[in-house]
Amino acid sequence: MSELKVDQLLIIGVGLIGGSFALALRELGIVREIVGAGRSRENLEKAVALGVIDRYTENFPTEVENSNVIFVSTPVLATDRVFAMIAKENYRHSIITDAGSVKGCVVSAAEKHFSSDYCGFVAAHPIAGRENSGVGAATGDLYAGKRTIITPSNQSGDDAIETVRQLWESVGAQVSQMDAFTHDELVSASSHLPHLVAFGLVNYIANHSRSQECFDLAASGFYDFTRIASSDPTMWRDISLSNADDIIRELKGYINNLEKIISQISQGNGDQLQEILNVAKVSRDYYLAQWTK
Amino acid sequence: MSELKVDQLLIIGVGLIGGSFALALRELGIVREIVGAGRSRENLEKAVALGVIDRYTENFPTEVENSNVIFVSTPVLATDRVFAMIAKENYRHSIITDAGSVKGCVVSAAEKHFSSDYCGFVAAHPIAGRENSGVGAATGDLYAGKRTIITPSNQSGDDAIETVRQLWESVGAQVSQMDAFTHDELVSASSHLPHLVAFGLVNYIANHSRSQECFDLAASGFYDFTRIASSDPTMWRDISLSNADDIIRELKGYINNLEKIISQISQGNGDQLQEILNVAKVSRDYYLAQWTK
Repeated sequence: MSELKVDQLLIIGVGLIGGSFALALRELGIVREIVGAGRSRENLEKAVALGVIDRYTENFPTEVENSNVIFVSTPVLATDRVFAMIAKENYRHSIITDAGSVKGCVVSAAEKHFSSDYCGFVAAHPIAGRENSGVGAATGDLYAGKRTIITPSNQSGDDAIETVRQLWESVGAQVSQMDAFTHDELVSASSHLPHLVAFGLVNYIANHSRSQECFDLAASGFYDFTRIASSDPTMWRDISLSNADDIIRELKGYINNLEKIISQISQGNGDQLQEILNVAKVSRDYYLAQWTK
Repeated sequence: MSELKVDQLLIIGVGLIGGSFALALRELGIVREIVGAGRSRENLEKAVALGVIDRYTENFPTEVENSNVIFVSTPVLATDRVFAMIAKENYRHSIITDAGSVKGCVVSAAEKHFSSDYCGFVAAHPIAGRENSGVGAATGDLYAGKRTIITPSNQSGDDAIETVRQLWESVGAQVSQMDAFTHDELVSASSHLPHLVAFGLVNYIANHSRSQECFDLAASGFYDFTRIASSDPTMWRDISLSNADDIIRELKGYINNLEKIISQISQGNGDQLQEILNVAKVSRDYYLAQWTK
């Protein structure tokens, strides 16, 4: 593995994800210059003030040609538009990657906009986050010890894959690969479903006829449980719409499971109900032990 | 408020809840002797070895007459049987209290078994817990800063209420009062629903066709989110069956809310979907700030 050096990194969308990536790479000294781009000048000025990026542009297409790596970390639904703008520039010598939580639509957008013989596109998904969003929440250790999934496609050359892998490994991530379809299917259950379950629960309590009393009685468990419902609503709107089929399938499967629980409770089937709860406890305890090993 | 002193405290069910109550009171020196009772001699011997109780009995009815306070911290469905056994002894000079998460059925059991002119029964619910159960998880600070709800009934005399209040305040709890019906209605939404949502989610993933891959991909957020699904299945079976009507109503309301989310996703209604997620985020952030103040 040759030493990784990047002359210019362009980060489009400097929030928690892009900002944390930039901060980690700056601390390592791998990149000579990090240029930020985004819709809000105020946010970009803050990113410079916080030392997250070296400078910013309000017109990122002008930076495409000179950027060795272009990192797109906007909400997922903006990816198509960003790729369309990149595609009008001379992007062929740049590696283009992203950090979206859904990969099928990102790979499709790349195939739609970038030349079929371009081999610098590598989609990726860092499985890391915090309930706080925005560049102010960015931290250089966000990815340390966390997983990043790379989902290579027809436009992913070996060199580009290797560079993206090295970038993520350099910021501390454990990198693995799978195809975008498999990725979207698995994270719809492991990540998207839990987030919508949590958002749905807090929304339900917020609209409850005795909402304030319920929140007043909620214990620390409730706030731990619902931490992921404080995630960025725009990001999760985009994820939900971008992976709609998988997510709807998982939500329906989950509702079906809740209806089994209702059925056992209403029939007073203590043994079957306890078995459902027990499978949950045993599974969580087992996989948590694996995960923290 | 006179100084609180208890000569003999009988704890029936020495697990996390009863054990933590005992440990906190022992550290304060308020009780001369704490006697533990339960079905498992092994557990009771462990409780003595851990310094949680002074001694144990395998035949608690013999201790009723000499116990100033009888604290029932068994799973909720065992309460009726325990009360029936207490009622055969001379319990009239004892204060009887409990720590169940459902209060309507406990108050009913007391009315069924204890004399109508008995005024020493005070139902209570400490809103505290850990995902670990059993006396080995007991800790003297479990109740510090947590809420305990007292639900007085026709058998709750003022002196008994005051003593139970003082006991809980002495172990650090913030005590408030409401009737058992209101309590059960509110906690079915604030506590029982979240627990079943979490158990149901982990059970769903455990039975998923790609279960292991899903758990492997789950991030720290998933394990935080599902911490309450590691709670004691027997305890939650009993809570579910004891508060069935309230819990089924809340589960159905919650499912209805998830179906609204499915509908917005399937119709591609980004704005309405974002509004649902946003109400959740804003509510949680607001109440968490109130709660941690």
